[in-house]
Amino acid sequence: MTILTDATAPAVRDLSALFDPSSVAVIGASNDETKYGNWLSVQALRGEHRRLVHLVNRRGEPVLGRAVHRQAVDVPGGVDLAVIAVPAAGFADAVEDALAAGARAIVGITAGFAELGEEGRTREAALADRIRRAGAVLLGPNCLGVLDTTTELRLASNDMPAGGIGFVSQSGNMALELSRFLERDHLGFSRFASLGNQADLTAADLVRSYTEHDGTELIALYCEDFGDGRAFARAAADAVRAGKPVALLTVGAGQASMRGARSHTGALTSDFAVIDAACRAAGVDRVATVAELAHLLGALHRNRRGGGRRLAVIADGGGHASLASDVAEARGLHVPEFDDDLVAGLKAELPPSAGTANPVDLAGAGEQDITSFGRVLDLALGADSVDCVLVTGYFGGYGGYGEALAEAEVATARVMAAHIRDHGKPVAVHTMYADAPAAVELRRQGVCVFGSVEHAAQVLGRIADRAERTAPHVPAVPAPAAPVVADDYWSARELLRQGGLKFPAAHLVRTQDEAAAAAARIDGPVVLKAMGLLHKSDAGGVALGLADEASVRAAHADMARRLDPPGYCVEAMADTRDGVELIVGVRRDPRFGPVALVGLGGIFTEVLRDVSLGLAPVTATDARALLERLTAAPLLHGVRGRPAVHLAAAARAIEAITSVAAAHPEIAELEVNPLLVTPRGCRGLDARIVLDA
Amino acid sequence: MTILTDATAPAVRDLSALFDPSSVAVIGASNDETKYGNWLSVQALRGEHRRLVHLVNRRGEPVLGRAVHRQAVDVPGGVDLAVIAVPAAGFADAVEDALAAGARAIVGITAGFAELGEEGRTREAALADRIRRAGAVLLGPNCLGVLDTTTELRLASNDMPAGGIGFVSQSGNMALELSRFLERDHLGFSRFASLGNQADLTAADLVRSYTEHDGTELIALYCEDFGDGRAFARAAADAVRAGKPVALLTVGAGQASMRGARSHTGALTSDFAVIDAACRAAGVDRVATVAELAHLLGALHRNRRGGGRRLAVIADGGGHASLASDVAEARGLHVPEFDDDLVAGLKAELPPSAGTANPVDLAGAGEQDITSFGRVLDLALGADSVDCVLVTGYFGGYGGYGEALAEAEVATARVMAAHIRDHGKPVAVHTMYADAPAAVELRRQGVCVFGSVEHAAQVLGRIADRAERTAPHVPAVPAPAAPVVADDYWSARELLRQGGLKFPAAHLVRTQDEAAAAAARIDGPVVLKAMGLLHKSDAGGVALGLADEASVRAAHADMARRLDPPGYCVEAMADTRDGVELIVGVRRDPRFGPVALVGLGGIFTEVLRDVSLGLAPVTATDARALLERLTAAPLLHGVRGRPAVHLAAAARAIEAITSVAAAHPEIAELEVNPLLVTPRGCRGLDARIVLDA
Repeated sequence: MTILTDATAPAVRDLSALFDPSSVAVIGASNDETKYGNWLSVQALRGEHRRLVHLVNRRGEPVLGRAVHRQAVDVPGGVDLAVIAVPAAGFADAVEDALAAGARAIVGITAGFAELGEEGRTREAALADRIRRAGAVLLGPNCLGVLDTTTELRLASNDMPAGGIGFVSQSGNMALELSRFLERDHLGFSRFASLGNQADLTAADLVRSYTEHDGTELIALYCEDFGDGRAFARAAADAVRAGKPVALLTVGAGQASMRGARSHTGALTSDFAVIDAACRAAGVDRVATVAELAHLLGALHRNRRGGGRRLAVIADGGGHASLASDVAEARGLHVPEFDDDLVAGLKAELPPSAGTANPVDLAGAGEQDITSFGRVLDLALGADSVDCVLVTGYFGGYGGYGEALAEAEVATARVMAAHIRDHGKPVAVHTMYADAPAAVELRRQGVCVFGSVEHAAQVLGRIADRAERTAPHVPAVPAPAAPVVADDYWSARELLRQGGLKFPAAHLVRTQDEAAAAAARIDGPVVLKAMGLLHKSDAGGVALGLADEASVRAAHADMARRLDPPGYCVEAMADTRDGVELIVGVRRDPRFGPVALVGLGGIFTEVLRDVSLGLAPVTATDARALLERLTAAPLLHGVRGRPAVHLAAAARAIEAITSVAAAHPEIAELEVNPLLVTPRGCRGLDARIVLDA
Repeated sequence: MTILTDATAPAVRDLSALFDPSSVAVIGASNDETKYGNWLSVQALRGEHRRLVHLVNRRGEPVLGRAVHRQAVDVPGGVDLAVIAVPAAGFADAVEDALAAGARAIVGITAGFAELGEEGRTREAALADRIRRAGAVLLGPNCLGVLDTTTELRLASNDMPAGGIGFVSQSGNMALELSRFLERDHLGFSRFASLGNQADLTAADLVRSYTEHDGTELIALYCEDFGDGRAFARAAADAVRAGKPVALLTVGAGQASMRGARSHTGALTSDFAVIDAACRAAGVDRVATVAELAHLLGALHRNRRGGGRRLAVIADGGGHASLASDVAEARGLHVPEFDDDLVAGLKAELPPSAGTANPVDLAGAGEQDITSFGRVLDLALGADSVDCVLVTGYFGGYGGYGEALAEAEVATARVMAAHIRDHGKPVAVHTMYADAPAAVELRRQGVCVFGSVEHAAQVLGRIADRAERTAPHVPAVPAPAAPVVADDYWSARELLRQGGLKFPAAHLVRTQDEAAAAAARIDGPVVLKAMGLLHKSDAGGVALGLADEASVRAAHADMARRLDPPGYCVEAMADTRDGVELIVGVRRDPRFGPVALVGLGGIFTEVLRDVSLGLAPVTATDARALLERLTAAPLLHGVRGRPAVHLAAAARAIEAITSVAAAHPEIAELEVNPLLVTPRGCRGLDARIVLDA
């Protein structure tokens, strides 16, 4: 099989006119303070020291006390970026006007296109095509604008705090909510682009642009519609490889969310299992809420070097120490007992009643001498056996005891921040006094501070998860092979066999005599399968363990009478000793393309829903990782006295199956179930194909 | 078997002197502002208009400008409650002094007892005994005091907000953190008791007292050491039955937490699976963090009537609508499509672009007419198909547009709160403007308001979970039966058989001839088991499917040669067709007593760890619930063409096994594995006993 490499890497589109235009025209500028055309004009003019700003309005009346042009094309020297906020009926004319004025980028605020249905989609596609043919780019339509704090470009209704985060969003409110969380942590945006209907520029295009943007350190997205999801995953993987983490907030777990999303932007949403498979492949952090996104961005901004699950917990009080340990362990971190050296070091700093084995309980030392916090933190961070630290509980509250202690606490916050910078290990601080001066100082110094311990633990857990990831790898979908036309068992079997999957020896026969002769050519008992039935077993179209000619003939006669199938497969009976049955399937997702599902068959898949998903084709290496992610994975390694199965053979088989499926876009679903894996090797025992309707 | 009822219900101890004393003496009163004896004096004097307050100090110097007594016994008219904050060396004398002064309650602030080890424990136990014999109660020692806002009694270092929550805590910082969360929500404490070492009064005693206290509406605990956990569970169950929800924060999931807890109060912590079993039995809500506790208390305070998972989501914006739906569904709520009537009602209120099918997307209606929020909420709450509502996103932010809208928004908040009160269904509001005037007004009106949507969903999910619970039932541990002395298979089998568990027919034999004769008396093939081996199968001490005399003799000869066992069991081979093998075990937890474990045997237990725990003895009804909680439960109901197994028989068997184990305190572990359940019935196929060392 051939897996195409990403040789044809998608070109990064030139978005210089979108994020750093030499001139801007607001088409639809307005004095009405309830209108977008007003807000945009106000914001655009704030960047006038950086670029020419022109207000355009058909009526020609002054806006915000400035003369306007009736058309963009009237602007002397032309227009680089046009933002259009006119009613839908005038949008096409405004686009023509902008292009005539030389616009290389258009931001379409105007709504009334694809989100209304098929007719709107057609109009929209034509406009996007027109703009692309003119060599320009379109953001939107039905979007909320664009913002680049590194170029002082503000073309959105609200201003946003400046910082290192590039944000792409399909919802203005999400951007607003995120900015409120970030501001509290002294963080902000390098760029913000509102996606709208993605008629031209997609999330993938923006991710590629942000990856190349020096002012962008981290990339975040709120995305409902991925368009070409595979392209998005590739763009995100490239960003991650370039050292820019990508965090994704999306919707689409349930029916309700899809109803919501459809009424919002006309998006079709993919379900989370597929999105998670794509995120894993691309190295993207998927988060579930805006708060989680903000916390993660804060942590990534402050520390991307971290790795490891060995957490030191530092508290002044046993309750907080224990609780934080539990919460951290529930989040997958370990709170190991400290080694003797570290314990000795801590004992030298702390009163005899202190806990020094991890968690550390200062047992009042904080109150006696607030600087203990700095020394204890330094000791913990300095230990080779500690990967990260959670400070929890009272710190921030000592200042309430009096002015001297308040000053000392803020000074200690500075010392703690310096230790954190020096050691370069991830640290999160939970404090019940999250707004106290010492907590504010920690934040100002770049330390992650949280008002609830679960958020601190969640972020440290995320950082540890990230460190264990392999490099991003979004498999390329191979070029389509010659399409298959038949969907019977024998065709599926042959297709997979040619793709490298092993099956027991078999012969395709028609008559009873042929069946008997075929069985004679096979060592040991055989299986007789009737062709032309999608669910052979349920229909009584499979006879197992036929050990002699008479039973082969009898089974043939029985099936001929009951089912009258067009043919039969006579197949060697597989040696199932010490074997485990897998299910391996591939289905074509409308956005992310071929997606592979791997599980232990039977009840594990049907009752326990213990499956893992990955983007197809799956390499043998990735196939092993998929198998290891199953809850039932220990069964593959041998439990209760059974030997381990041949994992390498299973992984190769999964590679073969998923590669075949990926090369056949006409196959909606392909499934090998069971795929028998024993200590001796791996064989497909059944296969089926569902062709695209 | 006999299961004792709770006929001997524990007496509620008289804590009137602890929470509403006629007079208070602070023994160890001090002018030193760094000392507990100073803080307590200041706080105690705040209640002087309610009761006499006496300061006691051995040196006799004035404290806080007031004359002191050198001893409590000098106080004219005596002392009702004595709070003792003297050094450990003087504690015993202070106790004698307090008792001599007539104290009916003592609060022991002084530390230096059981938390230091065995010697301290002995001293402490003697003092507690002395106090009990004098007819008084002791809170602590090593505690932080007591507070009753309904009687204006303040005997703790910090003041706390007043409200309807009765709190019991083993950590002062946890109380402080909780009070900070609650204050923000206009909530507070009716009573607070710091448990300390629980030398006399336990968490259970305090729960019983709070249950009878009119001013306490909800009961919350932070507890590391449950003491007699079964007694705690019974007290909590009684509180729940009396209509007072009990919420528990505890530690002890991991090794780290236990190290922390041990250095804190010398507590032994139980692991979470056992605690969860106890909480389920008692109807207690276990939470993992202080934030979660605060959120739950807020929701329970405001609405305890709610029930049902059918959630309406209301947002002004599709992103928030979809995201909230996803988060809510992930938390186990359903966001069903609305029926036609409700959709029609909403359409009449909202613009054409609004989402009206659930989630509701106001699509700008909030901005056009803020009162829409009230009407939409009223419509949703009024629908029979809606159990609860989540308002998410922008509400609270409209006020930023101008003064008129700000006023209208606050007025709308009042209208929303009124609708919520009228309909009596649970409602949570998430807003990105959680501190805005409209959000503050909602809180003031008793509505739950959250700054992150996950917290809103979590609380509504909790309320829905609670509505599905059965009535609390903490089984009584039966009176000990005559102890068993032998732990061989035959003894275990006989014990369980007499307890009502069915086994295949069997005979205990010694010689080969006896074995052959016993086999002849059994229909069908038999199993030969060697006695005296804990793990018979592993040692080759079990021979299955012996169908004739020769094979019985051969198996006997083989085992005799290899193992030379003291005896053999000849047992009918069970009919395993369509059967499922269960494991049922009981182990004695040091705090919660006999705890039952139920699971599907083999890989389900060993690899997938799919087990459920319950307090033993488990009734047949509770046994079914334990089985249904297994992930693999569908296997019991028949999947993939298999018939359902005889669940009632399995439940009766579990009742029998757990009742036997509960009646034998000398049995550390009892296990029936496998317990075979088929469509025809249920039989024990193996059993083992581990006697207490």
